[in-house]
Amino acid sequence: MQIDLNSDLGEHFGQWRLGDDETMLSVVTSANVACGFHAGDPRSLLATLRSAAREGVRVGAHVAYPDLVGFGRRPMGVSQDELTADVIYQIGALQALARAAGTRVSYVKPHGALYNTIAHDEQQADAVIAALRAVDPELPLVCLAGSQLVGQARAAGLRAVPEAFADRAYEPDGSLVSRREEGATLHEPDVVAGRMLRLVEEGVLADRHGNDVAVEAESICVHGDSEGAVRMALAVRDRLVGGGVGLASFVGAQ
Amino acid sequence: MQIDLNSDLGEHFGQWRLGDDETMLSVVTSANVACGFHAGDPRSLLATLRSAAREGVRVGAHVAYPDLVGFGRRPMGVSQDELTADVIYQIGALQALARAAGTRVSYVKPHGALYNTIAHDEQQADAVIAALRAVDPELPLVCLAGSQLVGQARAAGLRAVPEAFADRAYEPDGSLVSRREEGATLHEPDVVAGRMLRLVEEGVLADRHGNDVAVEAESICVHGDSEGAVRMALAVRDRLVGGGVGLASFVGAQ
Amino acid sequence: MQIDLNSDLGEHFGQWRLGDDETMLSVVTSANVACGFHAGDPRSLLATLRSAAREGVRVGAHVAYPDLVGFGRRPMGVSQDELTADVIYQIGALQALARAAGTRVSYVKPHGALYNTIAHDEQQADAVIAALRAVDPELPLVCLAGSQLVGQARAAGLRAVPEAFADRAYEPDGSLVSRREEGATLHEPDVVAGRMLRLVEEGVLADRHGNDVAVEAESICVHGDSEGAVRMALAVRDRLVGGGVGLASFVGAQ
Amino acid sequence: MQIDLNSDLGEHFGQWRLGDDETMLSVVTSANVACGFHAGDPRSLLATLRSAAREGVRVGAHVAYPDLVGFGRRPMGVSQDELTADVIYQIGALQALARAAGTRVSYVKPHGALYNTIAHDEQQADAVIAALRAVDPELPLVCLAGSQLVGQARAAGLRAVPEAFADRAYEPDGSLVSRREEGATLHEPDVVAGRMLRLVEEGVLADRHGNDVAVEAESICVHGDSEGAVRMALAVRDRLVGGGVGLASFVGAQ
Repeated sequence: MQIDLNSDLGEHFGQWRLGDDETMLSVVTSANVACGFHAGDPRSLLATLRSAAREGVRVGAHVAYPDLVGFGRRPMGVSQDELTADVIYQIGALQALARAAGTRVSYVKPHGALYNTIAHDEQQADAVIAALRAVDPELPLVCLAGSQLVGQARAAGLRAVPEAFADRAYEPDGSLVSRREEGATLHEPDVVAGRMLRLVEEGVLADRHGNDVAVEAESICVHGDSEGAVRMALAVRDRLVGGGVGLASFVGAQ
Repeated sequence: MQIDLNSDLGEHFGQWRLGDDETMLSVVTSANVACGFHAGDPRSLLATLRSAAREGVRVGAHVAYPDLVGFGRRPMGVSQDELTADVIYQIGALQALARAAGTRVSYVKPHGALYNTIAHDEQQADAVIAALRAVDPELPLVCLAGSQLVGQARAAGLRAVPEAFADRAYEPDGSLVSRREEGATLHEPDVVAGRMLRLVEEGVLADRHGNDVAVEAESICVHGDSEGAVRMALAVRDRLVGGGVGLASFVGAQ
Repeated sequence: MQIDLNSDLGEHFGQWRLGDDETMLSVVTSANVACGFHAGDPRSLLATLRSAAREGVRVGAHVAYPDLVGFGRRPMGVSQDELTADVIYQIGALQALARAAGTRVSYVKPHGALYNTIAHDEQQADAVIAALRAVDPELPLVCLAGSQLVGQARAAGLRAVPEAFADRAYEPDGSLVSRREEGATLHEPDVVAGRMLRLVEEGVLADRHGNDVAVEAESICVHGDSEGAVRMALAVRDRLVGGGVGLASFVGAQ
Repeated sequence: MQIDLNSDLGEHFGQWRLGDDETMLSVVTSANVACGFHAGDPRSLLATLRSAAREGVRVGAHVAYPDLVGFGRRPMGVSQDELTADVIYQIGALQALARAAGTRVSYVKPHGALYNTIAHDEQQADAVIAALRAVDPELPLVCLAGSQLVGQARAAGLRAVPEAFADRAYEPDGSLVSRREEGATLHEPDVVAGRMLRLVEEGVLADRHGNDVAVEAESICVHGDSEGAVRMALAVRDRLVGGGVGLASFVGAQ
């Protein structure tokens, strides 16, 4: 049994710091590194990439809408050709920084509002898929488990990597409980860790009503943007390792 | 006898257009394509790169300070590590867009204030050189002919490509007459074209006093940002071709 | 009989130019001046404002989403408090520039996607209304004629100024024919000018099927971003003046 | 005896936080609030301004070069008319936000590289002075004590407010010891607090060699960007108050 743990890194911007990249690089096997559109100035990205290279953590391009002040969290009505070009630009920028840091971009994961949008919006999804195909069709695309994007990406010839969210509640159909609803986010590290071990071992999670729901996941997303988040990420990692689960990137060791 | 003609392209931004890329691609052998820091949104860059690929014109990364509103023309006191990372980021972004357009980045030419600064500022020059070495040490760096940068880049193991400016007057020491002085810019297409033919044939130009000065140039920069500029670029091209000079990129045919 | 003619101005950005501000200032009575979020660097805005002051043309703050590369034309899922603060910021910036230019901001007109969104989205509309109330409740808000925003703004105590679009076709209910449909835009200056004269004289327009529809408008929007647009604007102005209609800002002479 | 204490606030940007505005507002009498060019998105600025209004702390416009990623700390070769317009834009934006928050902009203090540059560069200083004169000639300009800017601003009819820096060492001529030299920054809250009390009482400071140097200061700048900085600011405040010095804005109570 084996699973990947991924987290968002490289989210500084100039003078501003966000998250504890050094600690999270000792927790995860995949680092979703910002590309400058929602966060990440080139200099701090280079530093994060060097740390990832040193720790042997795989790097993914965390591509986003061009919205620094909104941190890429606001839906934007971009056209398909704008989006395709924006994603190519971001992947390329991170590829060169990664090369300079002694590593490389091993996958792509859309960020924030773009991530949520392409889970259901086929046109914007197509635009992202077109970007990966143009840059490197071998690049896996990390997708929300259970979303239509998984099938859409695979039909286009990409490797889709479905991921689960450690700290989120699930609906009976395997989708996430909306953040607008109470109980959408889980806060107990112990509970969360137990759920993730079961997900890896049995492929199921308890939904919001306590019934089992099957979730196909090749990666688990954990957060590192607060002390509590880091604690939870560590709890998940420890429980998985303690349960005999191997932690490794979905594209193999660096 | 052979020479390269280069010009700045891809200088649109979103809704705003600048220059006539399509025409200039029929004039030059090398296109310095903006990378988003002083001009160039990803979508319009992709369009320009596709045209360059179709016309068989070589593409260079026209890297700049992060200053859209100032069009990269304002000196900025950036640190070396900021500058190195900024240049890597820009080269990578353009590399991926070029790949998507069916071509590739064949050289790097700094733009505007960055170009002028590294012609004499060894620290910022070192930062740019470090960026090329980190991304791809085979990438040639286009430099102001006669500047100390030519030697500095070569000493660092890079291929430096010195360039002359078609429409600029020269001092007796082979440097450019400052734009602040009268007569810095030449306006007669015929005169300019004749000067460029002589530069290629004999390696000399008449300086501002009418005396010959040797200028080592592997490329000639022409402009395309106005109708007059396009006419002058065409005049230079026609005179060179009429004089039996071969026009080709300094890195060979595409 | 009297009407206001408004147009979008100040849409340059740094090195990039868009539209012929000088000509349009001789055509219109109200200038919607960009505020830096979708277009307009401070220096060029100051120049446009000085011209408006000289020509006695009223100035409005053309507030927008923060999206330079998209020219404010892409819908954005901003929160209400973000939007209110963004609009206040833009109005204030333009107020100070206007003061420096010897004029003042006499109204507010949202631009592009923001304009379209608040014509029907009550939450974003509330956020814009809150901004005007915070800065100066006397500032009129230019709104799409027939939209729910007209009533919403009036209910909040603002002066709403409904406007018609000279070059757009209308549905039987007085709304605009969507740009996605054929025939949404009118191209014949003569036809357009005749429609506008009738609008002022009788308060009606022919809808897309040729039937009369009542449109309440205190201002007519004309464009100046191309030669054809300028010609049409001039045709509208000439026909109105020839028909004895007085052209004047809806807030009176400067 | 009376003095003003000022500090930089409103330095958040979107998701990113910097400094403890709430605490510093209980320490200082003047808040230099960012205007969006080096820091400060409109929403967070509005929140900071509301807190300042509630605490009765005066607000100044902390204007800067347009350089978010460099936090306004990198010298930029802007032209005079660009700089004048940029400063007008920023003051206006903050004025409107301040009005919405129930307060107003009572002075202007340039930030970072702009602050340092206009202390000695007469052309850029003239551009800033022109901005204040255009917006409101009654707005005081906070200047480095001992710099030529103090006299230049006064000659232009502005009120110049010279300020001292609590945590900086001074040269025998009353200028600051360059940050590039050892001992430029003072770290002992007790020592710093004692120096500031003496400055207010006697108008002198010990220079880097221990000799007295006269420094004319109507305000003292303290920092709040780290826990240590807040402690030092509190120590200065306590010592001044304990020594019978009244703390009040240089423009009087709110």
